[in-house]
Amino acid sequence: MASSSQGRILLSVTGYNPRRWLELLSGEREVVLEPEGAEDPSIHFAVVWKHPHGVLSRLPNLKVIFSVGAGVDHIFADPTLPDVPIVRVVADNLTQYMTEYVVWRVLDHHRQGIAYRAQQPRKVWFEPPQPPATDISVGIMGLGQLGRASAKALLALGYRVNGWTRTPQATDGVTGFSGQDGLADFLAATDILVVLLPHTPATEGIIDHALLSGLRRDNALGGAILINAGRGKLQKEADILRALDDGTLKEASLDVFEVEPLPEPSPLWTHPRIFVTPHAAATSDPAYLAPPMLEQMARFERGEPLQNLVNRDAGY
Amino acid sequence: MASSSQGRILLSVTGYNPRRWLELLSGEREVVLEPEGAEDPSIHFAVVWKHPHGVLSRLPNLKVIFSVGAGVDHIFADPTLPDVPIVRVVADNLTQYMTEYVVWRVLDHHRQGIAYRAQQPRKVWFEPPQPPATDISVGIMGLGQLGRASAKALLALGYRVNGWTRTPQATDGVTGFSGQDGLADFLAATDILVVLLPHTPATEGIIDHALLSGLRRDNALGGAILINAGRGKLQKEADILRALDDGTLKEASLDVFEVEPLPEPSPLWTHPRIFVTPHAAATSDPAYLAPPMLEQMARFERGEPLQNLVNRDAGY
Repeated sequence: MASSSQGRILLSVTGYNPRRWLELLSGEREVVLEPEGAEDPSIHFAVVWKHPHGVLSRLPNLKVIFSVGAGVDHIFADPTLPDVPIVRVVADNLTQYMTEYVVWRVLDHHRQGIAYRAQQPRKVWFEPPQPPATDISVGIMGLGQLGRASAKALLALGYRVNGWTRTPQATDGVTGFSGQDGLADFLAATDILVVLLPHTPATEGIIDHALLSGLRRDNALGGAILINAGRGKLQKEADILRALDDGTLKEASLDVFEVEPLPEPSPLWTHPRIFVTPHAAATSDPAYLAPPMLEQMARFERGEPLQNLVNRDAGY
Repeated sequence: MASSSQGRILLSVTGYNPRRWLELLSGEREVVLEPEGAEDPSIHFAVVWKHPHGVLSRLPNLKVIFSVGAGVDHIFADPTLPDVPIVRVVADNLTQYMTEYVVWRVLDHHRQGIAYRAQQPRKVWFEPPQPPATDISVGIMGLGQLGRASAKALLALGYRVNGWTRTPQATDGVTGFSGQDGLADFLAATDILVVLLPHTPATEGIIDHALLSGLRRDNALGGAILINAGRGKLQKEADILRALDDGTLKEASLDVFEVEPLPEPSPLWTHPRIFVTPHAAATSDPAYLAPPMLEQMARFERGEPLQNLVNRDAGY
C-alpha cells in the first residue's frame, strides 16, 4: 500500500529488535531503518525508542516524532532534538492488559503453577497444597486506576484484597492500610504482594529484604509471593534473591527490572522460582500500537490535529 | 488429640500416597493404615479410595465408610461390601476451584505463559503477540454450574464467551450454540476451547481430531487452544498429540486423562506445549477434605445424622 505521495518513516529503535515494527509500519508506508535515511528529505515521520542522538536533527523535513513507549524521557535525552511535535503512544486498554497480568500471576502462584511445571517433566502425579482463593489475601501497593481494576477482578474471583496507599483511600471491598504506620499491618495480612506503585524518590528501592520479611509466609500457600508490575527501580534485586534463598519469599513474578532489558548475566533469568516477563504486563505489542500510529500520520497529512501530543515544557 | 474413647479409623487408599491423609486424620483420631488393622474391633470408620476388596467386611465394628472422592463407584465395586452407611466427600467450593482453574489456564495460554517459560532460561527479552482479552473468544462446552461460573468470571475479565450445550440454553452474556447442528459454528468462533462436559455414552471421545480441526486457529493467539477439565474419557489423546504436531492445535491444558494417574510412558507428560495437572482442577486436597470428614465422625458419635449419604439403590 506504500505510495510515494506519503511521507516516509524513519524507524530508529535501540535495545530491541525492530523487525515487527518494520513489518507492521511497512504495510502502509515506506519505512527506512536507521542508520539508513540520514538527511533523507522524503522522511516526514520518525518512530523512535532511545534513538541515537543527532539522527533526528539531520532530517530536513521531519514533521512529527512518535515514541513507541508511553514514556518520552528517552526522546528528551537528545540535546539536538528538533522542534517538531512529539506524540506518545497511548494504549487505551492499558488497564485491561494490567488486570489480565495481575490476575494471571496471582492465579499461577496460588494454583501452584511453578510446582506443577517442576514436577511434570519428572512425571509426578501429585497435588500440592491448594487453598481456595477465599483463603488467600492479596495485598496491592498502589491503588490508582490499575490497582483498583486489579482489586476488583481479584475480589470477583473470591480473593481477599488488602490495599496500601500513601494516604488513606477507600476502595470497595478492599481492606485499606496507609502510610508508613500502616505498612507493617498491611504486609502481615498479605500472602501475595502485588506492587503497582509509581517510581518516585519515596518509592525507589522500597521492595527490599525488610519489606519482604514483613509478609505473611506461614500461610496456606507455603510461603509469601511477590509480583512487581510497577517499575524496576522499586525493587532491590539482590534483596529479592536473598529473600528467595532464605525462605522469606517462596516465589516471584517480575515484569520490571532495575536495568531493562534485563542483562544476560542476571541470576533472575535462571532462578527456578522467578517468572520473568519483558516489561510486557501492559503490552507494547507493535501489532496493537502500530495501527493507531499510522492512523495519526494519515490524520496529520489530511490536516487534522494530532492526538496524545507531548507537552514540551512539562516534559511528558 | 487422639482419645481411646473414639472409634479408630482404617485408612485404605490405593493408587496414590496416603501420607497426607494419614497426617491430617491422625491429628484427631487414631488411624490404622491398611493392610494393618485386619479384624480390629476398635475400628469404627473406614476412609477409602479403591480399597482392596474384602478388607472392609473383616472389620467387626465398622459403622461408616467415607469415600475420599466425590465418586463412589470404586466402593460399590467391592462384592463383599458390608451394609453400613457410605458418605461421599462434598467440597462445597468445587465451583470456586473450577472457576479458578479455568480462568488460570485461559490466562496462561492467552498471555503466552508457555512461550515465556520457553524463552526465559535462554534469556530472551521478547514480547510474543499479545491481543487483549476483548479480542479472544473462549468457547465452553457444557454450561452446568461449573461452566456458567467460569463463563461469568471470563466475561468479567473482558473475554468473549461462547457456550455449547446439548439443548438450547440462555446464559447471560454468553453466545449460545447447541446440538450437533450448532457445533461447527461454535468451534469456528472459538479460539480457546474449555471442555466441562460430563462423561456419558454421547460425549465419550468427543474431543477428537475432527472436533479440534473445527476450532479457529488463524487467530490473534497464533493458534487454537484446548483446556479439558471435564473427564478424561471425553478425549482421544492420540488425536490431541496429532493435532499439536500438525498445527491444528497450538497448546493444551489437560487436568484429566483416559487413564489416571496418567501412565508414565504417556508422551503427554513431556510434550512442551501440554500443561498437565493431576485431576486437581477442583481440588481433592486432603487439607480441605479431612476436617469435614472428622467433623462427621464426631457428629455420628454424638448421635447426630450423617450428611452427604450415598443412596445405595441409586448407586451414587
